[in-house]
Amino acid sequence: MKAFGEQYQQRSARDPATENDAPSQRRDPREPVPDFDTPFRAKLYDLLRWRRDVRRFKRDPLPEGLIDRLLGLACLAPSVGLSEPWRFVLVEDPARRAAIRTNFETCNAEALSMQSPDRAALYARLKLQGMDEAPVQIAVYADRETVQGYGLGRITMPETIDYSVVTAVHTFWLAARAEGIGVGWVSIIDPAGVTAALDVPQDWIFIGYLCVGYPQAEDDTPTLQRAGWEHRHGTGDVILRR
Amino acid sequence: MKAFGEQYQQRSARDPATENDAPSQRRDPREPVPDFDTPFRAKLYDLLRWRRDVRRFKRDPLPEGLIDRLLGLACLAPSVGLSEPWRFVLVEDPARRAAIRTNFETCNAEALSMQSPDRAALYARLKLQGMDEAPVQIAVYADRETVQGYGLGRITMPETIDYSVVTAVHTFWLAARAEGIGVGWVSIIDPAGVTAALDVPQDWIFIGYLCVGYPQAEDDTPTLQRAGWEHRHGTGDVILRR
Repeated sequence: MKAFGEQYQQRSARDPATENDAPSQRRDPREPVPDFDTPFRAKLYDLLRWRRDVRRFKRDPLPEGLIDRLLGLACLAPSVGLSEPWRFVLVEDPARRAAIRTNFETCNAEALSMQSPDRAALYARLKLQGMDEAPVQIAVYADRETVQGYGLGRITMPETIDYSVVTAVHTFWLAARAEGIGVGWVSIIDPAGVTAALDVPQDWIFIGYLCVGYPQAEDDTPTLQRAGWEHRHGTGDVILRR
Repeated sequence: MKAFGEQYQQRSARDPATENDAPSQRRDPREPVPDFDTPFRAKLYDLLRWRRDVRRFKRDPLPEGLIDRLLGLACLAPSVGLSEPWRFVLVEDPARRAAIRTNFETCNAEALSMQSPDRAALYARLKLQGMDEAPVQIAVYADRETVQGYGLGRITMPETIDYSVVTAVHTFWLAARAEGIGVGWVSIIDPAGVTAALDVPQDWIFIGYLCVGYPQAEDDTPTLQRAGWEHRHGTGDVILRR
């Protein structure tokens, strides 16, 4: 696999990480290590319990600059080899939004047709996207071709690039919820159709489509559980020892 | 795709979600919605900034019951269709740990051989796993075959099952850091070898191998940046508008 080394060697000549690793990016050793105390942890657990996958949004716009700030926090997520492979596409154009909504409708109609007879009526009642109301919509991609990180950590598992982007989405989600903002991750969608509608590089991996806005209601119980579709099972069957 | 409906129909007959969706799992409407105030958010951002991918651990054991509690919090992560597809394998047997360490060594030697000449020496100096010291080690899997969730949301994107597990890992990671516990995600590994060493179902998707324990040091700067391998680039090139 000679190409591997060559790919990153070319970058080394152009952009050596060590040169850009400026002292200003290093920690001020005088900054104390934060103390994550019991009250903070209790509130963090509240945040985890009250994060929701939101489908019903208010149409109110979000405060100026908030999304950029939340995306900045998302970039604190872990990434394989410090590759930071996340790409966030803010979808603003009405025609592009309409194309993505149609994409969802087609996929959702097909999913409905595949439901078993005893679940189809319930499925049809579920609201599975918030595209009509959510003021902010973000298509999230992973750039597997990035040379950032020099390929470290992803030779045997190239999918860790995608996983890095998922942790960024999850970081965004938690930070948004802490601001009272809801996020809904839409996956009933054809990735190739989204990529075509948004005119982004074909080799980017589509990770998910996020609807973002103030939620109509807050809850600590998943919407699908409240709707009677599925319920949480806890940790009983998911922890093994070897 | 008749098999799709049938698969979930069989489960419906056995285990209707609506029957198990007991009132006790519903929110007590008297519980107030948490107030995530400015001081909490500031500390949450500290948590995001001070989470690290840890490779240098103390050998001290973790408090009794802590890992089970952290895994319980991990299960609050979002999952596609409420499928909760995460499977956590606590690796305790010394022979299995040794097999996985050998697996890493083999993959890492190959990765070293693929480095460009000007990066190989730096790569060789990096510490890329903490398996010799970390008191707790967890192999994390995704069960794409689970019937939980009745397939909702994953027809066009079956990989969202894997993504759900990644959000659980990230939840575990943040909750651990809030307890002063470090997590290191090892991806320089051959998934099939790990699965064979652990005797888990062949069709589970290996997501990552976590080393867990008290870190030797705390920092707000990624280890790879401090080592001069790569640096953070910020949000400049990762946000597009369409």
